[in-house]
Amino acid sequence: MWRGSESGGNAMFELDFKKGDGILPAIAQDHRSGKVLMLAYMNNEAWQRTLETGEAHYWSRSRQELWHKGATSGNIQIVKEILVDCDRDTILIKVEQKGGAACHLGYESCFHRKIAGNGEERIVGERIFDPEKVYNR
Amino acid sequence: MWRGSESGGNAMFELDFKKGDGILPAIAQDHRSGKVLMLAYMNNEAWQRTLETGEAHYWSRSRQELWHKGATSGNIQIVKEILVDCDRDTILIKVEQKGGAACHLGYESCFHRKIAGNGEERIVGERIFDPEKVYNR
Repeated sequence: MWRGSESGGNAMFELDFKKGDGILPAIAQDHRSGKVLMLAYMNNEAWQRTLETGEAHYWSRSRQELWHKGATSGNIQIVKEILVDCDRDTILIKVEQKGGAACHLGYESCFHRKIAGNGEERIVGERIFDPEKVYNR
Repeated sequence: MWRGSESGGNAMFELDFKKGDGILPAIAQDHRSGKVLMLAYMNNEAWQRTLETGEAHYWSRSRQELWHKGATSGNIQIVKEILVDCDRDTILIKVEQKGGAACHLGYESCFHRKIAGNGEERIVGERIFDPEKVYNR
C-alpha cells in the first residue's frame, strides 16, 4: 500500500509537465476490481497534493482550479498505488473509491457509455447515487 | 465482443473533439487482465479507423501522423470493447494485445514505473521483448 504521508511530498521523481502545457492526464483505476473509473488532469500542484495527502487531487480544466476529488460529494479517492508511463507524461493511480462511485452522474465509472458495433451507444452499469441529492442541484 | 466490421464505420455516436483541440486521450486496457496498457491520443480519423478496422489506431503527437499501433512491431491491438466517458472526451478501449506487450520499451504495460511513498521510482514488470531487435535500432 502506498502512503503519501511517508514521503512528506519530497518526490524525487519528475514528471514531464512540459508535454501537456503544464497538465497531464491521470487515470484513476479501482485498486481491487481493476475497473477504470475516470480520467482527469493534474498540474504540478495537484500531483504534489496527491503525493502529500494520499488522496487524489486534480486540476479542473473547466473551473480552472485545484480539485480535491470528493470534496463536495464525499466520494474521495484514497491512493493505493501510483504508476507513471514510459514517457513520464501520464499518471495511473490505483484508488479506493469512497462511496462506490467516481462519476458525478452517480455511476461507479465515468466510462458507462458503451459503443456498439453499429455505432449506437448504450448505458452500462447502474447508478450508485442520485446526483440531484448529492450535489443539491 | 465488439466487431468494427459490423458497423461499416457509420458511427452514430459523436465524441467531443472540440474539448482537446481535435485530439482526445484513449486508454487501452487488457480485456482479460484489466491491466491498463497505455494511453495515447485519437483524432477523428484515428477514431474512425479504429471503428472501421477493429484495430487500435492513434494520432501520434510526436510524429504528427496517423499511427496504426503495432504496424512496425507486429503488436497490434484487437478491439474487444469501446467505452466513452460521461463528458464524451475520453475513450477507453479494451483490447487483446498481440505479442503480449504494448510498450515500445518491451514491457507489457507502459505503466511500469512505480512511485514509492518516498518519491523514488522503481521498475515493475518484466520486459516481454527486446526493443533493439523488434525495431532494428
